[in-house]
Amino acid sequence: MSTRIAFLKGHGTENDFVIVPDPENVIDLPASAVAVLCDRRAGIGGDGLLHVVRSAKHPEAQHMAAEAEWFMDYRNGDGSIAEMCGNGVRVFARYLQHAGHVTEGDLAVATRGGVKTVHLAKDGDVTVGMGKARLPEGDVQVSVGERSWPARNVNMGNPHAVAFVEDLAHAGTLYDAPPFSPASAYPDGVNVEFVVDRGPRHVALRVHERGSGETRSCGTGACAVAVATARRDGVDPAVTGTPATYTVDVPGGTLVITERPDGEIEMTGPAVIVAEGEIDREWLESAGR
Amino acid sequence: MSTRIAFLKGHGTENDFVIVPDPENVIDLPASAVAVLCDRRAGIGGDGLLHVVRSAKHPEAQHMAAEAEWFMDYRNGDGSIAEMCGNGVRVFARYLQHAGHVTEGDLAVATRGGVKTVHLAKDGDVTVGMGKARLPEGDVQVSVGERSWPARNVNMGNPHAVAFVEDLAHAGTLYDAPPFSPASAYPDGVNVEFVVDRGPRHVALRVHERGSGETRSCGTGACAVAVATARRDGVDPAVTGTPATYTVDVPGGTLVITERPDGEIEMTGPAVIVAEGEIDREWLESAGR
Repeated sequence: MSTRIAFLKGHGTENDFVIVPDPENVIDLPASAVAVLCDRRAGIGGDGLLHVVRSAKHPEAQHMAAEAEWFMDYRNGDGSIAEMCGNGVRVFARYLQHAGHVTEGDLAVATRGGVKTVHLAKDGDVTVGMGKARLPEGDVQVSVGERSWPARNVNMGNPHAVAFVEDLAHAGTLYDAPPFSPASAYPDGVNVEFVVDRGPRHVALRVHERGSGETRSCGTGACAVAVATARRDGVDPAVTGTPATYTVDVPGGTLVITERPDGEIEMTGPAVIVAEGEIDREWLESAGR
Repeated sequence: MSTRIAFLKGHGTENDFVIVPDPENVIDLPASAVAVLCDRRAGIGGDGLLHVVRSAKHPEAQHMAAEAEWFMDYRNGDGSIAEMCGNGVRVFARYLQHAGHVTEGDLAVATRGGVKTVHLAKDGDVTVGMGKARLPEGDVQVSVGERSWPARNVNMGNPHAVAFVEDLAHAGTLYDAPPFSPASAYPDGVNVEFVVDRGPRHVALRVHERGSGETRSCGTGACAVAVATARRDGVDPAVTGTPATYTVDVPGGTLVITERPDGEIEMTGPAVIVAEGEIDREWLESAGR
């Protein structure tokens, strides 16, 4: 075994990741090691970690190997397992291209959430299918300090409350989770998006992610916002039979969200490899204890 | 010119730095590039940047070249210039050792704050001279929410207010700067340390750094706390003629502070190189615009 572990760092609209290429799945990455690598001061730093493994070499992905050569073994920053990450899979695809494993065009990526189709465009943008939105009935409301707003309940596999506001500054510091009502709408908490109009089919958001606080980007949040804005505008692709495309500015960049008539949502945006290097295996093992 | 720029990442008690080795001072590092490199999501991430240059090759350090071969061209995370950084110079020394430029023992490092003597110990700890503390007269007080405490005014080149508390949790979230009085004590604001006893000559602190918020470590803060605690304990090396050593736990690790009879303060602690790698010069130039 080598005493060095290669890594890269990349981000998609400033949702950032430590990337660990490991085609043969020989690197031991317990939760403690992932947490150290993602630690922004004691380690490299990232919102999460992308462990890049051939599907055929990973017990959780072997059944997808015929469809998708590569498996995104995604980990949260604390080392816990996650099914999928929309910005993560875009950066994952950019890495495969960077490493020469794939070229422009369509690419199937195995994830714990199933096989995802990613498109690497000529202009550098990366598109990923994000599934469908559900729009549970019922009024919800969110508040910050003295202000409160009606919000749209959108579920992208995870829950969102989308509030249209006059000014993004009204969301305040977002140090704390914005209170919502009724409590029964989100028994496990909710991601809250605050949205302002920027132009025709163009909005900007700030987001408080459940458990993380304010973040620079949230892929499912951008999708939830695009769908909520479309419905507010009286636009529903299932009715018109025409895809609807919204530009969504997040604090860390810009995402373009398209909802198709069949309800499938695609997210397009930049994905960047920033640096590559090596860490000492011994350091990782001692720090991860 | 190469199209790749080498970097390392390191930290001292989780005060972390991007290190850019550049012995001949040929890398252009405008404030915008430094800010991008220190950006935790769009770049590598660090509290600051250590540009490693031979003193003879840097206009600000040539006059120190006879005394100190290496110049720490220190930058804050926003790209602005700073004179000195106690944890930074310890990581700087560790880098020089890592790169094979120096070995264990004493080392002179040129900084904008003058030539500093650093000691690289066999056990891996790094010691740096932090200068003397001044203890301005006059009562000061700091508060968090409903609680308030008397505080000791200590100046380490920068101003500190050191408050002994029953429980570090009483400092709350430290999202906001703790109010202090009288306003005249600190016309430019202050770094506030909250301190509890851990044992004989052993304390723990939390710190709110002026302009940065709560941090994992603050070198001058640890020194200020050691001096304030010594005086509280009736210990003054200038009177006894004996050095006083205090162990100070910061959130990111442990520092050992020794005050000598002549008032000079030494700070000892770990300094770690975590990773090394390369960034693309073109990426840096485009991102830094």
